[in-house]
Order: sequence, then structure tokens, then C-alpha cells
Amino acid sequence: MPAFSRLVRFLAKDGRVYYGDAILPRGVTDISKTKKARILRGDIFGKHEVTDQVADIRLLLAPLALEDVKTVRCLGLNYEKHAKESNLPIPKYPVLFYKPVTSLAGPTDPIPVHQMAQDGAGLDYECELVAVIGKRCADVPESEALNYVLGYAVGNDVSHREWQIQRGGGQWSLGKGFDGWAPFGPGIVSSELIKDPQALKISTRLNGKTVQESNTGDMIFNIKQTIAFLSRGTTLLPGDVIFTGTPSGVIMGKEQKIWLKDGDVVDVELEGVGTCTNKIEFARDTAKL
Amino acid sequence: MPAFSRLVRFLAKDGRVYYGDAILPRGVTDISKTKKARILRGDIFGKHEVTDQVADIRLLLAPLALEDVKTVRCLGLNYEKHAKESNLPIPKYPVLFYKPVTSLAGPTDPIPVHQMAQDGAGLDYECELVAVIGKRCADVPESEALNYVLGYAVGNDVSHREWQIQRGGGQWSLGKGFDGWAPFGPGIVSSELIKDPQALKISTRLNGKTVQESNTGDMIFNIKQTIAFLSRGTTLLPGDVIFTGTPSGVIMGKEQKIWLKDGDVVDVELEGVGTCTNKIEFARDTAKL
Repeated sequence: MPAFSRLVRFLAKDGRVYYGDAILPRGVTDISKTKKARILRGDIFGKHEVTDQVADIRLLLAPLALEDVKTVRCLGLNYEKHAKESNLPIPKYPVLFYKPVTSLAGPTDPIPVHQMAQDGAGLDYECELVAVIGKRCADVPESEALNYVLGYAVGNDVSHREWQIQRGGGQWSLGKGFDGWAPFGPGIVSSELIKDPQALKISTRLNGKTVQESNTGDMIFNIKQTIAFLSRGTTLLPGDVIFTGTPSGVIMGKEQKIWLKDGDVVDVELEGVGTCTNKIEFARDTAKL
Repeated sequence: MPAFSRLVRFLAKDGRVYYGDAILPRGVTDISKTKKARILRGDIFGKHEVTDQVADIRLLLAPLALEDVKTVRCLGLNYEKHAKESNLPIPKYPVLFYKPVTSLAGPTDPIPVHQMAQDGAGLDYECELVAVIGKRCADVPESEALNYVLGYAVGNDVSHREWQIQRGGGQWSLGKGFDGWAPFGPGIVSSELIKDPQALKISTRLNGKTVQESNTGDMIFNIKQTIAFLSRGTTLLPGDVIFTGTPSGVIMGKEQKIWLKDGDVVDVELEGVGTCTNKIEFARDTAKL
């Protein structure tokens, strides 16, 4: 059982990077408001302790260091209305794809857009509940699945629809896997605090305007079912990260599609966890394909 | 530049696991014939040396330890005849998907088949050239791409076609990602030894009978083009592994489809590198979906 309530990873005012347990003002649950944390020592997936040493946070980072993550799994079409807006059938089994670990980024990092993904149709957001695996497991029954979860975060499964679908030959990996296209955070709320991950409001704001708004209770495959399914014949490892799909409201599903552009700011928010706020940043110094 | 010629990882007769440089009898290039290796010390992607200490090999293991691999990328439909036998168009861009690191296995490991993948249509082999990235890179021009390759191996992109295609909702990840479904090896031949990776015979034998036979020169996107493309906006890391697609001859493409079954032995072979020999092993103690 983790010793922390809200795991954060941060650059401290002393210039060093720490894991810590977020200290939040009374009544506040959005980890992005955290200014201080108790420094954590040890292995976040094993023996560790929250110390009495309090650090001032300069910048919240991705809540897991790249070297602490093994595999990033993502579900597609896991909300009924989103499957419909995508013109795709309601899946019979969870639809799985992966992102590389290099796509992970922090809760306020810019989302870099390579020149090859700056045109076409087009750049889109996807707010998602993110479950982090805390213990090695395989062939987990649904009834025990949540015991293997370290905690929950919110993430943005940034996607370029044309690379994802048409130019990707039908495989979604390329158009969703660019560097920094999976910002998540702002921290990881322990599964001790979130006993029921299927009753959380989840939403996206684009430049301040709400564009996705749903509840994790609307998932087609809930987190227990997802972990049980994904672990059949496949070992899940501590630090594996699972993006659990997005609700409706993405740009692809709209009649008039105004794709994300340079400078747009996307907030993804999960109740009890907090907000990631990431600005779209078109790269100018990369070669076009 | 790596100090080794043929990197192997092995269980030695002293009961310990080492990285080493394979010692081959004169005239032999198949690393699976290796009985001895010079022990390697240091970081295989950084500063390392081949020592004078020779170890007796009891068992060749996956040539990279799981903790030394970050991301396993795979190309689909990268040989024209295979795209045709799959009834799919010749791709305009490389078709990318991923396997989790837990799918990697050694050159003689059995291929475990979970009960959920024991029926249906069905279990298949895919021999592939595997390129291992040795140095961090992004936005690599084709002309420099091979400088970032540590070396080459041969692998088997084991696939369950029904989970890959129909039950997977069109995403290939699940039906190709089970534990042990990416055996590779028998070692990694340094890119100093293989100057031209596009002129190597590649083949599969099923229970001794040749079923795939091609040449890496027949790839649609060669390794230079593949690395240049995959690194656009995406950082490739030391230890990233790229399966570069399979030629024609898979079971899926045959008129009469006799899928792999318990006890079948599959050899995948790459000229100048060697052979992986893996036995299909149906698991009996796992729950059926």
C-alpha cells in the first residue's frame, strides 16, 4: 500500500527533482494548486516513506519519471457516445493501442507539434482517466483488479486524426505517439483515496470553453474489466500506465471541425485529481515530411 | 561504436547471467551455435569493454534484458507480397504498431499461448529483421540513420489473427502483444559487421519445412527510411527495438490455413545473424475468456 495520498514529481525551489506527497490547502483537491510537498524517499512501487521534509514546488513534472514507466497502454472507443461520434461500432472487447514512453509529459508542459502534424485534418484533444499499475500482475480476476492500481491521474491523449487514421494505415500508433503527446498528472491520487474510480466527472476546456464533459461511470469497459482483460496472457508491470479512453466532444466528432492550432490551451480535468493545462506549440525548426 | 561484434546475453555454466561477445567456430555465422563468449563489462549503449574472460554458455537469453529496452516498434505490411497476401493495399507510409516489452523473449524460449488465443483463426508466425537503436535520436536524416543502429537480430512477430484483426477492433496490438510473443536473437550483430542490412536472406521453417523465404532487399521501406520516418517528432532511445515487417508466406495468406498448434516448432533465420527456434506451448492453467 502506498504511503502517499497524492504523488507528485516536481522541480523544487532548491533546483532538484523529487517525488513527494502533495500538501493541499483545506477543501482543495486539484493537485495543480499544490505549492508544497512532503519529500518521498525510496521506491514508489516498493518500500518508501513520506518524510517530514517539506519542499517548495517550482514546477510540477510528469508524475512518473520516464525510467519508472514501462508500457503506456490506451483504450479506444471506451465511451458509447465517442464511438458513435467516431462513426465506429461499440466495441465487443476493449480496443487496445500503445503510446511510447517518450509521449509522456507533465501537467503544464507545452504539447510540441512537429511540422509533419501541423497540417491536414487534424489535431485533436482527448481527456482520459489514467490508471497507474503499482504491482506486477497477470491473469487478474476483475474482483481483485483494483488492488493492483497505484492510483489515478488525468491525461490528454493528443491525436492527429489524419496520421492516426488515413495516413497510419489504420493503426493509431503513429498519429498519437509523438513526443509529449500524452501529458498527464497533475499527480497520482492513491487508490486508497479514490475507492470508486467510476464516479468521477471528467472534462476538457479549450481556451477556457468546455468541450468535453462526462463521467467515468459512462465507460463501456470499467477499470476492473480493463485490467482483467489486458492482463490475460500479458504481464502488467509496476509503472505501466493505462489511458482509459475519452468521452464524446472531440473535434473529429463535430460537424464543423476547427482543429487545434498553435497557441491553443487545453485543460483536461478529473474530479478529485485535478487539471493538466497544456499549450499547443507548433515547432518551426523541424523538416516537413 | 560498440566494442562487440556479436552481442549475446546468456546464462553461463557458473549460474550467472552475462552480456558477452559471442565466440564462433571458424566459418560459422549463426550465433545460435555459440558455446562460449567473452564477457562484456559496462553499459552496452555507452562505455563498455569486451574482457578476456571467457564464459561457457548454458542458455542464450533474449539479447537485451527487459530493463534495457524502452519501446518495441513494429512495421506492418513492409513487403509487397505480404501486403498482397493480407488483402491490404501497399502502404504509402510505414505502418506502425507496438508490442509491450513483456512480449520479448529469448531465441529458444517456448512461445506461451494463453487459452484465450488457443482457438479461432488463428496463430501465425512472422520472421522479421530486428534493428536495435544504440543512440538517442530524433529527426534523423536518412543518410545518417544507420549510425544510430547498434546492430541487427532476427525475430518472430507471433500473431493471433482473429485477436489482431476482428476481435481487436482493427488495432493489431492485443493479438500480437502476449507475453513471449516477440522472441528475438540469437544475438545482436553489430552494424559494423553488417554494413548493408538490405541484402540478407530471411526465412521461416515450420517443423523443419521452409514456409517463408525472402530477402531484406525486398522491404518497401528500408531501415534508413524507417528510422528517419519513425524519428520525426518522436525521440528514439537506446534499447528501442524495431521489428521491420515480414515477407509473404504467413499462414493467413494461404488458401488452406492450418494455424500453429501446441508443440509446433518455428525457426526464423536471418543471414549473418542466425536462428531463433521456438516451440509453441499451449498454456493449460489459464482461464478462458
